[in-house]
Amino acid sequence: MTSPQRGRPLGVAVIGHSFMGKAHSNAWRNVSAFYPDVPHTEQRVIVGRDHARVKAAAGRYGWQEAATSWQEVIERDDVDIVDICTPGHLHAEVAEAALAAGKHVLVEKPLANTVFECERLVEQAADARARGVFSMVGFNYRRVPALALARDLVSSGRIGVVREVRAAYLQDWLADAGAPMTWRLRKDEAGSGALGDLGSHVVDQVQFLLDDAVTTASGRLETFVESRPGSHGPEAVTVDDVAWAWLGTARGATVSMEVSRMAFGRKNGLSLEIFGAEGSISFHLESLNELVVDAGTGGTRVLVTEADHPYLEAWWPPGHVLGWDHTFTSQAADFLACIASGTPPQPSFADGLAVQRVLAAVEESAGTRGAQVDIAH
Amino acid sequence: MTSPQRGRPLGVAVIGHSFMGKAHSNAWRNVSAFYPDVPHTEQRVIVGRDHARVKAAAGRYGWQEAATSWQEVIERDDVDIVDICTPGHLHAEVAEAALAAGKHVLVEKPLANTVFECERLVEQAADARARGVFSMVGFNYRRVPALALARDLVSSGRIGVVREVRAAYLQDWLADAGAPMTWRLRKDEAGSGALGDLGSHVVDQVQFLLDDAVTTASGRLETFVESRPGSHGPEAVTVDDVAWAWLGTARGATVSMEVSRMAFGRKNGLSLEIFGAEGSISFHLESLNELVVDAGTGGTRVLVTEADHPYLEAWWPPGHVLGWDHTFTSQAADFLACIASGTPPQPSFADGLAVQRVLAAVEESAGTRGAQVDIAH
Amino acid sequence: MTSPQRGRPLGVAVIGHSFMGKAHSNAWRNVSAFYPDVPHTEQRVIVGRDHARVKAAAGRYGWQEAATSWQEVIERDDVDIVDICTPGHLHAEVAEAALAAGKHVLVEKPLANTVFECERLVEQAADARARGVFSMVGFNYRRVPALALARDLVSSGRIGVVREVRAAYLQDWLADAGAPMTWRLRKDEAGSGALGDLGSHVVDQVQFLLDDAVTTASGRLETFVESRPGSHGPEAVTVDDVAWAWLGTARGATVSMEVSRMAFGRKNGLSLEIFGAEGSISFHLESLNELVVDAGTGGTRVLVTEADHPYLEAWWPPGHVLGWDHTFTSQAADFLACIASGTPPQPSFADGLAVQRVLAAVEESAGTRGAQVDIAH
Amino acid sequence: MTSPQRGRPLGVAVIGHSFMGKAHSNAWRNVSAFYPDVPHTEQRVIVGRDHARVKAAAGRYGWQEAATSWQEVIERDDVDIVDICTPGHLHAEVAEAALAAGKHVLVEKPLANTVFECERLVEQAADARARGVFSMVGFNYRRVPALALARDLVSSGRIGVVREVRAAYLQDWLADAGAPMTWRLRKDEAGSGALGDLGSHVVDQVQFLLDDAVTTASGRLETFVESRPGSHGPEAVTVDDVAWAWLGTARGATVSMEVSRMAFGRKNGLSLEIFGAEGSISFHLESLNELVVDAGTGGTRVLVTEADHPYLEAWWPPGHVLGWDHTFTSQAADFLACIASGTPPQPSFADGLAVQRVLAAVEESAGTRGAQVDIAH
Repeated sequence: MTSPQRGRPLGVAVIGHSFMGKAHSNAWRNVSAFYPDVPHTEQRVIVGRDHARVKAAAGRYGWQEAATSWQEVIERDDVDIVDICTPGHLHAEVAEAALAAGKHVLVEKPLANTVFECERLVEQAADARARGVFSMVGFNYRRVPALALARDLVSSGRIGVVREVRAAYLQDWLADAGAPMTWRLRKDEAGSGALGDLGSHVVDQVQFLLDDAVTTASGRLETFVESRPGSHGPEAVTVDDVAWAWLGTARGATVSMEVSRMAFGRKNGLSLEIFGAEGSISFHLESLNELVVDAGTGGTRVLVTEADHPYLEAWWPPGHVLGWDHTFTSQAADFLACIASGTPPQPSFADGLAVQRVLAAVEESAGTRGAQVDIAH
Repeated sequence: MTSPQRGRPLGVAVIGHSFMGKAHSNAWRNVSAFYPDVPHTEQRVIVGRDHARVKAAAGRYGWQEAATSWQEVIERDDVDIVDICTPGHLHAEVAEAALAAGKHVLVEKPLANTVFECERLVEQAADARARGVFSMVGFNYRRVPALALARDLVSSGRIGVVREVRAAYLQDWLADAGAPMTWRLRKDEAGSGALGDLGSHVVDQVQFLLDDAVTTASGRLETFVESRPGSHGPEAVTVDDVAWAWLGTARGATVSMEVSRMAFGRKNGLSLEIFGAEGSISFHLESLNELVVDAGTGGTRVLVTEADHPYLEAWWPPGHVLGWDHTFTSQAADFLACIASGTPPQPSFADGLAVQRVLAAVEESAGTRGAQVDIAH
Repeated sequence: MTSPQRGRPLGVAVIGHSFMGKAHSNAWRNVSAFYPDVPHTEQRVIVGRDHARVKAAAGRYGWQEAATSWQEVIERDDVDIVDICTPGHLHAEVAEAALAAGKHVLVEKPLANTVFECERLVEQAADARARGVFSMVGFNYRRVPALALARDLVSSGRIGVVREVRAAYLQDWLADAGAPMTWRLRKDEAGSGALGDLGSHVVDQVQFLLDDAVTTASGRLETFVESRPGSHGPEAVTVDDVAWAWLGTARGATVSMEVSRMAFGRKNGLSLEIFGAEGSISFHLESLNELVVDAGTGGTRVLVTEADHPYLEAWWPPGHVLGWDHTFTSQAADFLACIASGTPPQPSFADGLAVQRVLAAVEESAGTRGAQVDIAH
Repeated sequence: MTSPQRGRPLGVAVIGHSFMGKAHSNAWRNVSAFYPDVPHTEQRVIVGRDHARVKAAAGRYGWQEAATSWQEVIERDDVDIVDICTPGHLHAEVAEAALAAGKHVLVEKPLANTVFECERLVEQAADARARGVFSMVGFNYRRVPALALARDLVSSGRIGVVREVRAAYLQDWLADAGAPMTWRLRKDEAGSGALGDLGSHVVDQVQFLLDDAVTTASGRLETFVESRPGSHGPEAVTVDDVAWAWLGTARGATVSMEVSRMAFGRKNGLSLEIFGAEGSISFHLESLNELVVDAGTGGTRVLVTEADHPYLEAWWPPGHVLGWDHTFTSQAADFLACIASGTPPQPSFADGLAVQRVLAAVEESAGTRGAQVDIAH
């Protein structure tokens, strides 16, 4: 078991060095500068398969060392935290081994591609927790200040009981039917399409914002472009381009969700509209620093950059807006603060499992013409 | 049979003098001023049950006479057009009689409350048409210039094949759980709740904008406030507060629809996002004069007030925005132009029936936990 | 002297039948329908130079008669109100004669092209008032519900003492250097360019919204396109394309104003931002039904369509937006209500004179490299 | 003279550790991660007056050492770049000494508080440049991708000849008359108020975006709250709360500028509207990642996050928005790239001087009731 009290910075290893590896490296490089009160860390080692490329990444992103064997790295005494940024189908194996080695584990979302793997990981995380080892899944949007503020407003009752949530996550990078085949469009590698990639963010946000559990799901999936140019001619697309769901929550809210990679003109269009009995809240990710809040007084645009807004004290004066990557830095800070205080970090592996169960239920429903499916908890 | 060629203005009778009667009266009072080339009309008579009130309405809204018997009015020789603005459950009886009397008939939406009534009216309209008598249903949003422009853009192929439509009609006048009971919340009188009231507009728009037919439907209905203060104590609400649907079209598009009267902060929030293979179009009714069009060149806000935009030549110079009521005037003009030219007006009674069939299918699906229902045509 | 008590509707004559004649005719045709409590009117006669054209306009816009001599019309016993929609250089002569004939007079803005003419008209209006004859100048934007609400908020102290107003009126119909010469670009006919055409609206709004008087002015004028294609070859443009001003008010606010007909992409862009010691208000004419109000609680978008908002009780339910032309109908209603109650209507001729004095001061300042000019009152 | 070719990273010293010191430290800590092709740097030393505080800052922000004497630091052999983040009245002295010591110098804006100091610095920078020593002034907004794109669009002729620019920088942190006295409100320390603080950004942007020089200025200054609570009772405010200017450029454009710290509800409201003969461009800093471009085809909202947009290749995929602080990292990268390639960095000290001359002319004009002042170059 590691302890931040033993007088040296916590050593961090990140597994993976592409898009998410870059984003997480940025977080570890900057967390102490903005959050000086959490345990200090050192960027010990970054891991990848290709030696030359991971060495370049190490130099570029501020890591002391590069390595090609994650198995060796997780055993190192100078590594206290393992941050997993590999493709999703590798999450379970690495996380399990890292927890067994007594390392705190941060797993980029999704926790794993299957409910079965997620269930195992939840058990292992519970065992590890009993030994003082912490784990968290990286739904970074929980650290968007505007969304953290939204959760505070909901939980404080400012908009009353939530009845109806209208959610979407719309992108367009597959709108072009001539865009080439990628592994993300093969079901055996990617698990699902827009549903897993984008829907997972929506489902986690809904459970986070409402502090509620999704207990029923109806789903519909469509693949509008059924084959795409592959390296050996046309290849079948085996995942969804667009997914829709209706989700019922334990406390009685209904959520509509639409996630798409065919929504021409939408780049990173996560939008959330929460309607309660006494108010409403709206958010759009392309306007990351804003929230529209109506607590019975008209829709008020809040520029969420004030010192008393969540996370903002760490950053800049009012009106100096944050970007997408700042969420990862705040996520790292929250993880470190939990390690220091002995508080279980959130979103937990159980939260990650809950998301996968909802996605599986959506897929099951879609396979039966949309009939509603109950979700066990 | 009436004929605009016989050398006198067409006499109009409107049945009903509350909200819709006021809006339709406004249209008849103004149509000649803005559309001088359509047959001239005279506001002959307005009909209502209460003599004093209908007389006041006649004076106020510019009608030559007031009457209390629609049966007598539809037989008058000086009445050529009967415009029906009564509650929906009376539409069928009045329309049938008016058609039988050889009058052109405009029916405010919905065509009727039941599919059965709509089917009969479609037959009667066909018979009347053979006798030179025209009929139309009043989905006035077809005359919003921005939506007419959207249809033109879609049909001209500017955004490619339509795949995905995200539609909502959100209002909040029932968000307050203490709002009193009204006839609109009783199933036997109103037919349904948000579904019929707001969903009918959405369904008609979808079929209009895409020039396509909805062939499958999945539905979900919720009543969040189950009883409300009535005149004799609490009374059960027997219609939906919110309705959701997924609609499949003949050409393969999927439409998601959410209609609500509980959406705190939304006043008249009809929004439509149409995603095609080569572009997208967005509209919001609270910004009636605007359309955002992305035909592969970025989302361009079009202020739909130019002379070459639909309907605009009749109105004001660029930048001088129209309001909600102008749609009724343009609707009257289109109806009159069709009468003059012998062209069947649109939306036809068959269009009105198509909408009711979709709504019925949504309700049927909702009764079986959302399983998809096929719609016969 | 006319009196609404004498038992018959007030007879109205409108002088002019082009753009403004159409807009004012629309108002007279509809005022009774929406404002039943003001004196009833009849559209007696419309006046124009060309007999055929004015006859067509009469038929189209609902006037009982057409005439070509305004001199004869203003003497008619069945005419109680003269509404002047001619070009500005004719306003003074017609208004003076109509007042002398004992008719109530509504003059479309500007009151007149010169300060001298305005001063004479103010005197004549005072004399007429003593004889029970009323007069008003038609700054129709005072009847935009959102702007009327803004004035109410300012006068009730909701945003504290006003310090700073940022105002613009931007259009682009002259941005194209190839657009042809028109009388509006000749100083001897039009008086000035963007300054008079657009600046007059801004200045009146500022004085209306703040209930304050402009007492100093600095100005700058630019003509970016110095000649344009005329019927006999290139012709010099002798008015401003763009005008800027800083206006000081009696109570100590500073107003910046920018008005342009070269602002590419802006169609009817009147925008007003009012900053007070305790809040702010923003308005944009292309979003006619909205106001953003910040009274220390964040910028709240108000959809100004509620029954308790100014003018709205006369119109439609919440969320059913108004357009540009509705302002003229409400203007006519206000004028009639004042006639009925014996209250001097606003904006008065004195208000029209005040605007012209400010514009003259802006022009004077612009002629001396922008040095500030004091305005006598 | 330093040289990046000599085989070791460039050593950086930052002078100052408060707001700007934090922002610049962030840039030096991250520049290599995002811009791997520019010379590598090391965060050698941070300088401040208070030993304990600067030591804490060093630890927090990633500096190897802390120091209290800038005079000693600029002489160190392992320091190649001196980055000056002190208050403005100290800029000249430190910059002069650092250039004399052969260090590359980055000065946070403004270059200096007075034109006189700026002129000296320009001479010294020219001398240093001859010795291979580079200098730059830190107008960080030049590195907002949307603004860099705007400049590219203007210079490529996409909107034609620029005629009219409407610019504002509105904040509200002094709107409250009870906000206490600070050094920023004393003329002897701060030089000016909103004019220097906010107007300097506007003037630099205008000259950058248009690639043009401001040659005439008219100005108006207002102090709405004339005294504020000081530590010994009320104290006079001796700078402007709000400043307005009209600026004429060498190529004939007119710029209106309004800068305020009293604009209730505006937090960091830098807005720029550029109107050319063939199009327009609009930007608002609170929507940092967006540009609205109208090149004759309607106002198109561009989300400036594509790989081919300025700076974006270094950062994240499309739709993953940047924040305010990223501009400093890109600024550091540009400075380093210029050092490596031997290209004079921009904005140069001459650019910094040009801004101060414009601000001085605005102030001079304001002192003579706004009469226009010519600016020597």
